[in-house]
Amino acid sequence: MTTSDIVATLDALGAAARGAAARMAASPRAKRDAALRALAARLREAGPELETANAQDLRAAADKGLAGPLFDRLRLDAHALDTVIQGCLQLAEMPDPIGEITGVTQRPSGIRVGRMRVPLGVFGMIYESRPNVTIEAASLAIKSGNACILRGGSEAIRSNVALWRCVQRALADAGLPETAVQLVETTDRAAVGRLVAMPEFVDVIIPRGGKGLIERVAREARVPVIKHLDGNCHTYVDERVDLELAVRVVDNAKTQKYSPCNATESLVVHAAQAGAFLPRIGAVFAAKGVEMRGDTRVLAALKDVAGAKLVAATDSDWGEEYLAPIVSIRVVDSLDEAIAHINRHGSHHTDAILTTDHPNAMRFLREVDSASVMVNASTRFADGFEYGLGAEIGISTDKFHARGPVGLEGLTSQKWIVLGEGEIRE
Amino acid sequence: MTTSDIVATLDALGAAARGAAARMAASPRAKRDAALRALAARLREAGPELETANAQDLRAAADKGLAGPLFDRLRLDAHALDTVIQGCLQLAEMPDPIGEITGVTQRPSGIRVGRMRVPLGVFGMIYESRPNVTIEAASLAIKSGNACILRGGSEAIRSNVALWRCVQRALADAGLPETAVQLVETTDRAAVGRLVAMPEFVDVIIPRGGKGLIERVAREARVPVIKHLDGNCHTYVDERVDLELAVRVVDNAKTQKYSPCNATESLVVHAAQAGAFLPRIGAVFAAKGVEMRGDTRVLAALKDVAGAKLVAATDSDWGEEYLAPIVSIRVVDSLDEAIAHINRHGSHHTDAILTTDHPNAMRFLREVDSASVMVNASTRFADGFEYGLGAEIGISTDKFHARGPVGLEGLTSQKWIVLGEGEIRE
Repeated sequence: MTTSDIVATLDALGAAARGAAARMAASPRAKRDAALRALAARLREAGPELETANAQDLRAAADKGLAGPLFDRLRLDAHALDTVIQGCLQLAEMPDPIGEITGVTQRPSGIRVGRMRVPLGVFGMIYESRPNVTIEAASLAIKSGNACILRGGSEAIRSNVALWRCVQRALADAGLPETAVQLVETTDRAAVGRLVAMPEFVDVIIPRGGKGLIERVAREARVPVIKHLDGNCHTYVDERVDLELAVRVVDNAKTQKYSPCNATESLVVHAAQAGAFLPRIGAVFAAKGVEMRGDTRVLAALKDVAGAKLVAATDSDWGEEYLAPIVSIRVVDSLDEAIAHINRHGSHHTDAILTTDHPNAMRFLREVDSASVMVNASTRFADGFEYGLGAEIGISTDKFHARGPVGLEGLTSQKWIVLGEGEIRE
Repeated sequence: MTTSDIVATLDALGAAARGAAARMAASPRAKRDAALRALAARLREAGPELETANAQDLRAAADKGLAGPLFDRLRLDAHALDTVIQGCLQLAEMPDPIGEITGVTQRPSGIRVGRMRVPLGVFGMIYESRPNVTIEAASLAIKSGNACILRGGSEAIRSNVALWRCVQRALADAGLPETAVQLVETTDRAAVGRLVAMPEFVDVIIPRGGKGLIERVAREARVPVIKHLDGNCHTYVDERVDLELAVRVVDNAKTQKYSPCNATESLVVHAAQAGAFLPRIGAVFAAKGVEMRGDTRVLAALKDVAGAKLVAATDSDWGEEYLAPIVSIRVVDSLDEAIAHINRHGSHHTDAILTTDHPNAMRFLREVDSASVMVNASTRFADGFEYGLGAEIGISTDKFHARGPVGLEGLTSQKWIVLGEGEIRE
């Protein structure tokens, strides 16, 4: 396709989505929930079709030498399909995020002023190999009364087209416009450049994938982006702490799974606890093969731990998101120093304090400038499902609009409503 | 100044603001309110100094041939000064927007999850000639616990520097960092280019001024922008309406003042009311010298109105923000047509329906995609003070983050807080 073909194709998708968005916004909840239930049914009956399409994608990927986690993410097996089907049914049961009216008060002029929650309009979703994101994004768009334009990875194109057909049929079943969920069928990379730069048709872009993708989207976008960059999460063990709790929570935060963005990458320990706490957690890490990169006080405290993989930390370690069995460890002399360290080196994703001191807990909550701040809990809880959002379209490491896990509410805006009885401005 | 000097200067301001923002965010409400009261006192005692500085700006502007509204906006007379002083005192009395904790619920895992309102961090304010914006922005920054970097118009530089000195003294009086409010002292235009493109130091840009300024900022910004473009506001007179109310409200919405962004620029009238309503409002407009640009049905209905300035509307009239004694008028055959017309040609700022029909009022509220939607009230009410925000940093015509009049809340974000008792993720 030539560049002008791509522009024309994307513009046509955009115009159709913009038109569908108005109909979705005005649609009653019952129709949107009916579409979600129809989608679950359509996906179930399309099982064999979806399996065939996915097998073709997998074969093509294997031929190209794709392997490991990238290949695994492409697979849409019965379990993965069942998970997205259950997700659609759960979404149908959730409260409607649209139409809520809040804070109506009467002003001295006589008018009543409040706010009404409405859909954002059209969102563009750009993602990599996982085909189940097609259904997650489509179902969140339907529930929230938005339209969306989906651009999945080229290696999943056959699976995505097959899934998208189910979405279109489900929308038609419920009497909603099929164009409310569009798929970019061309795998040309220039399509992404156009999708992120048409503010007349697209209100927000949500990229999901590696850092390279997200940085490209942020750089080229001419509309707002809900973006998720690093998750360099910290757990700080305070001066006064329940040692058993600290060992259990830090172990979980670091080792329960190494790859998620909410895993703790850096441990900060008050000097008063270095002697008691560090050898105990050091033994846990040593037993699990976790490499410890510490400052001089950390290395001194851990020197007698059997089997510990100890490395002297360099400055670059404090900013690193390892996503691996490696942890950086630093000793600090005060809560002030801990907060300053986290705000300077962290990625403003999720940070926790473990403490029995109430004023310190409150200061940490207020002063650590992160999307999620926690007291006495594992950073691994930073997640839309764990927070009760029902579903998660992404995690934002920005402060503007939505912050942290983004659910249905992040796909809405609030407009002002004014109810009058003929008031005029004096 | 060379480009690299400007970059170095702005980077130094940015780094200082970033440091001050952390201290402002952690400061108690009492100190921020004390700074606002000190600012009011400092401005009062600096009266003669401010008068001298402003007189120099006015003289320089007159020498350059500045005249009319641009010249008037530059003037900081006793009344304008008193207004900003009162504004500071009122802000000190308002509730603290920071620290509010909402929606804490316990999840099945045992953790308690909620949200805490915190400052955005650092905002950059770019504005044109009005020096009182310096104090409005500084006082909103102080109240909301943010830091800010101000870039006013070059023609107001002496007034702005004098006002800024008062702000710095007031911050020092209250024991807050003077660097919480910075002023860009160079009038080089390249400074704006740098200010909008340093995400490491500035979290959001708020431009206030003409469309040219705002379009430039939106194009060059590498951080979010709270931007206000056109105000092409509509008032729709529905099929069933109280005629007295309709004449009074439409007259006020169009003619009470022609220059504000919330003045009605376009009148949409249901065909059933064309015969009764149009001649009455036409007579009002004719008496006030308002030119009427209508479609053929409008011109027919108004042909007998004495002294009416009638013009056949062209397509471009429907999208025009006149800010002048001109109104476009269109007759429609249904509410659907009215809503479609407004969503297509409006600027998503403020639109009103005048009706006695409840279902129509509710449909208009839901389906008109504007920052403010009104029933039976003048569009002139779309304003931070009228809405009870206490103060207004700007009006957003975007949907992302803040929409419509933006007060203190628009300068905050909500972070997630998690309160646990040692819970771990299974």
